[in-house]
Amino acid sequence: MPTSQPAAHGPGRPRSGRSRAATLEAALALAAEVPWARVTVGAIADRAGVSKATIYRWWPSRGAILVEALAEANERDLAYGLPDTGDLVADLAVVLRGVVDELADPAWDALLRALTVETLLDADLRGRVLASIFAPQLAAFEVRFAAARAAGQVAADVDDLAATELVVAPVFHRWQQGSGPLTHAYADGVAARAVRALSPRG
Amino acid sequence: MPTSQPAAHGPGRPRSGRSRAATLEAALALAAEVPWARVTVGAIADRAGVSKATIYRWWPSRGAILVEALAEANERDLAYGLPDTGDLVADLAVVLRGVVDELADPAWDALLRALTVETLLDADLRGRVLASIFAPQLAAFEVRFAAARAAGQVAADVDDLAATELVVAPVFHRWQQGSGPLTHAYADGVAARAVRALSPRG
Repeated sequence: MPTSQPAAHGPGRPRSGRSRAATLEAALALAAEVPWARVTVGAIADRAGVSKATIYRWWPSRGAILVEALAEANERDLAYGLPDTGDLVADLAVVLRGVVDELADPAWDALLRALTVETLLDADLRGRVLASIFAPQLAAFEVRFAAARAAGQVAADVDDLAATELVVAPVFHRWQQGSGPLTHAYADGVAARAVRALSPRG
Repeated sequence: MPTSQPAAHGPGRPRSGRSRAATLEAALALAAEVPWARVTVGAIADRAGVSKATIYRWWPSRGAILVEALAEANERDLAYGLPDTGDLVADLAVVLRGVVDELADPAWDALLRALTVETLLDADLRGRVLASIFAPQLAAFEVRFAAARAAGQVAADVDDLAATELVVAPVFHRWQQGSGPLTHAYADGVAARAVRALSPRG
């Protein structure tokens, strides 16, 4: 059944679609239930009903499994792109309020904290996050900024990467540092300031 | 010689100023020379010529020693405040170019990466960074923003914490993610966008 097989991501024969899906689901479920320190490859294998050998054939680490699972969830979230009501500040505020809500969930906070730690220490994992999570997010921002540029709301010479970082970085910085409250009002302010920074001159 | 004694930071008798300085110097020197994983409390004690028991009487962890050492270095850097030439974009660009230069040094990159990891996992250390490094930085930004506000360059209703994060967060976000080049041109662009975002309307 070649049509049901996902493309091979590693060496050797293609992954079974069913084992792959079960592994990703198990990693996400465990990560939401227990501290990340306890989400071992063995625990993921048990939960998925897949052997550890099978998992290690396709992923080098538990971090790589989680990144792939989060990338799939992220792809589903971005399937219809960022909101586009024509009001750029309001649309970015919706996105940032969603991030703030996510970070307020203790299970997600702990999970993202653990994943951030691993990406800081592991260049391979950092590359996976960049390619499979950040790049699709950047692509969604590019589409939204292109529409805003056509509407005269964003300057023609704005770099989409820098613009995207301007929108998301303050929220993640505050989350990491614990320097202030992560509220919807804060999200709204970040969106408003970013759009002012990006708007055409004069 | 009470005047040469620093204030007690922990329980029991006050720290010897000499042991304290030797410990902080040893931590900074080791952190610049060897990977952070090898900068144990024992190695710091050996280098400083101080017993491990003495160190543990005053600091709960190697991370706490490093944060205190970095906080002192930071205080010296900030002794004269942020640059104030009257040109806010240029002054913030000088600050961000300095950050970019620091992050380009592989030893500093590794050290800050390791320290970021520990602060993500250790709420006590996060509190120490916030109180002893971030708070003095914020205070320096507050002084510079107050001057800019008086000169009509920053809106009266701007929150200094949010404004500071707007300036520094994009650089640290790009550093952590590896999402793009960390150049002086990028630092200049971040400074220019931040000042546009903060400027009074109309």
